[in-house]
Amino acid sequence: MPFRFTIESHAGAARAGVFTTPHGPVETPAFMPVGTLATVKAIDPLDLRAMGAGMILSNAFHLHLRPGDELIRSLGGLHRFMGWDGPILTDSGGFQVFSLADLREVGEEGVHFKSHIDGSRRHFTPELVMRIERNLGADVIMQFDHVIPGQSVETVARDATERSIRWLERCRVEFERLGREGDTEGKPYSEQALFPVVQGGIHATLRRESATRAREVGNWVGYGIGGLSVGEAKPDMYAMLDVMHEALPEDHPRYLMGVGFPEDLVEGVRRGVDLFDCVAPTRMGRNGAAFTSEGRVNVKRAEFRADPRPLDERCDCPLCSRFSRAYLRHLIVSDEILGLRLLSLHNVHFLVSLMRAAREAIRAGDYDRWSREWLERYHAKARTQ
Amino acid sequence: MPFRFTIESHAGAARAGVFTTPHGPVETPAFMPVGTLATVKAIDPLDLRAMGAGMILSNAFHLHLRPGDELIRSLGGLHRFMGWDGPILTDSGGFQVFSLADLREVGEEGVHFKSHIDGSRRHFTPELVMRIERNLGADVIMQFDHVIPGQSVETVARDATERSIRWLERCRVEFERLGREGDTEGKPYSEQALFPVVQGGIHATLRRESATRAREVGNWVGYGIGGLSVGEAKPDMYAMLDVMHEALPEDHPRYLMGVGFPEDLVEGVRRGVDLFDCVAPTRMGRNGAAFTSEGRVNVKRAEFRADPRPLDERCDCPLCSRFSRAYLRHLIVSDEILGLRLLSLHNVHFLVSLMRAAREAIRAGDYDRWSREWLERYHAKARTQ
Repeated sequence: MPFRFTIESHAGAARAGVFTTPHGPVETPAFMPVGTLATVKAIDPLDLRAMGAGMILSNAFHLHLRPGDELIRSLGGLHRFMGWDGPILTDSGGFQVFSLADLREVGEEGVHFKSHIDGSRRHFTPELVMRIERNLGADVIMQFDHVIPGQSVETVARDATERSIRWLERCRVEFERLGREGDTEGKPYSEQALFPVVQGGIHATLRRESATRAREVGNWVGYGIGGLSVGEAKPDMYAMLDVMHEALPEDHPRYLMGVGFPEDLVEGVRRGVDLFDCVAPTRMGRNGAAFTSEGRVNVKRAEFRADPRPLDERCDCPLCSRFSRAYLRHLIVSDEILGLRLLSLHNVHFLVSLMRAAREAIRAGDYDRWSREWLERYHAKARTQ
Repeated sequence: MPFRFTIESHAGAARAGVFTTPHGPVETPAFMPVGTLATVKAIDPLDLRAMGAGMILSNAFHLHLRPGDELIRSLGGLHRFMGWDGPILTDSGGFQVFSLADLREVGEEGVHFKSHIDGSRRHFTPELVMRIERNLGADVIMQFDHVIPGQSVETVARDATERSIRWLERCRVEFERLGREGDTEGKPYSEQALFPVVQGGIHATLRRESATRAREVGNWVGYGIGGLSVGEAKPDMYAMLDVMHEALPEDHPRYLMGVGFPEDLVEGVRRGVDLFDCVAPTRMGRNGAAFTSEGRVNVKRAEFRADPRPLDERCDCPLCSRFSRAYLRHLIVSDEILGLRLLSLHNVHFLVSLMRAAREAIRAGDYDRWSREWLERYHAKARTQ
């Protein structure tokens, strides 16, 4: 089997492990930078390698619409297309269909919607999404699921959760059929792992049911935890992660989808999550906002105007090791691409490094103290302002 | 003296040399990438170093308005501010005042204009510009000159040329005063060289007079050739370069200002020019246009959609050595910052490498044949289309 997950250390529910994929190992816990359109915005694959990113995420929905998954397959698959030879995970488009697409209409068969690129009518089904993700060729692919707002009442959440389970079954059947169809030389294809997405909103009973039923549908390499960080309160999200920790098998990687603020990563790791992703670091970078070890800052602030210090004195990224706050502010105020690039690099580097530090703390058996101190420093300035 | 110019080889009027500056040597002929606002747009100083760029250009007019030359001085000068420890040349703002500023009004004292940043009223004089350029601390600084359109009739050109000479005299006096004033420790300051700008439009007599009078005003390290590539026909520009070759001293570097299309570089070198600059490579990069060894191309063209080949098979830049035309087209069509960055990198790398190849051809005594073959390949496709 090209996939393997080995847990090296525990600290409470937190774990440090290695997730082996056909494109190499991923040390966990890990933050996966998001390359929606086959590029982590403003960042080169060599930068990702240099900062120690293990696995990155890309998006089946977006790549299907532009430039097309068949085009990418004809060019050798997503890894070769985007020049990244490390592990890739593709999101199925469940979230995008519900948050971006116009005129969407959910039926049992799938979802009808209008493309935001050219207005064309599209129909996503679990089977089509499996074929798209197969064409892209990521190491890990996610099932097509029915995503709903975080605060949905239980009847709505149950309906979507049960549909997601039925769609998981259909994804599995198509995924296995594609696997038997084989690779370009006709050999059975085993270079991809399909992850189910556990849903259930903020309802513990539904979450447990969803996990149990997903485990019944197949023997999975790992599990996605979906439908969180979509509008619910943070304590609700953390409570659901505690439920998931109990309901999911201990020895498989767990991926908390779309969650990527530093405090959420630290709290997620504490509750047994292994993988995270989020567009926040690159989106914030393009808007002039930065993560730092002492909290979030807007780099356009007037105090930075003549400040010769690095953005974050604890950071060794290309921005912080070579440029001043004054220069960064000048670049961002002047809308210079180098500023967007350096700040995106810094923010992604910040989360990748945060997870590396968390991993070391778990291995040292010290996660509880480390995470409390980390959060204290991160929130201290906000409290005094 | 921290400045020295050594000519190693000649091939007709073309020369291969080394221009030594306080921040290191520049092998000539050389293309200087333009970092208008203290950043070569979309490119990191480390990229410039990696592609072998010798000297870069920045802009006194823009930096005075934003973030301010005094701020940059307080942060240790332009080299430290932008993280580039190689040679820098600053343009004086003559061209920008005439092409960008609103409501400009030229008098003998200087130019009144309205800032395009905040609408504030400004008054640039030769003395102020010397102080701005001194604050920035570039290795080579240009005189403040009176720029006029390329097709100006002789009376207009004569007026501007003569004013530029009077301003050169005032620049020299202020530059020498600032030099005696000394560095931050009070020692006489000799780390900058002031270049005059020879004007004269497309009028050979005026060009010769301007060169003669500039040589009378001071003993210069090198010479700027201004007021070309501003609307005149190419044969007129080339004719003026022939005049300049005769009128300027052989053993000093010659900088042809604002000229940067490949064919102009090749023709300029043939006529004895050593240094060039132009915003074209980065501006074109941001617009999806590329220089290649077989001519200019728009990378959005449909034929690139599924093309696995590099943009230019003769190029070893980060774009051409690692990515396909199909991926580049996808990035540019999707407005991805990585696309703008890679294409800007490629275009600047193209011109820097072109001048490196020209230098080798001169040293091999083979510039005439090399340049004819180079231009033939560059223009061949355009002729067959």
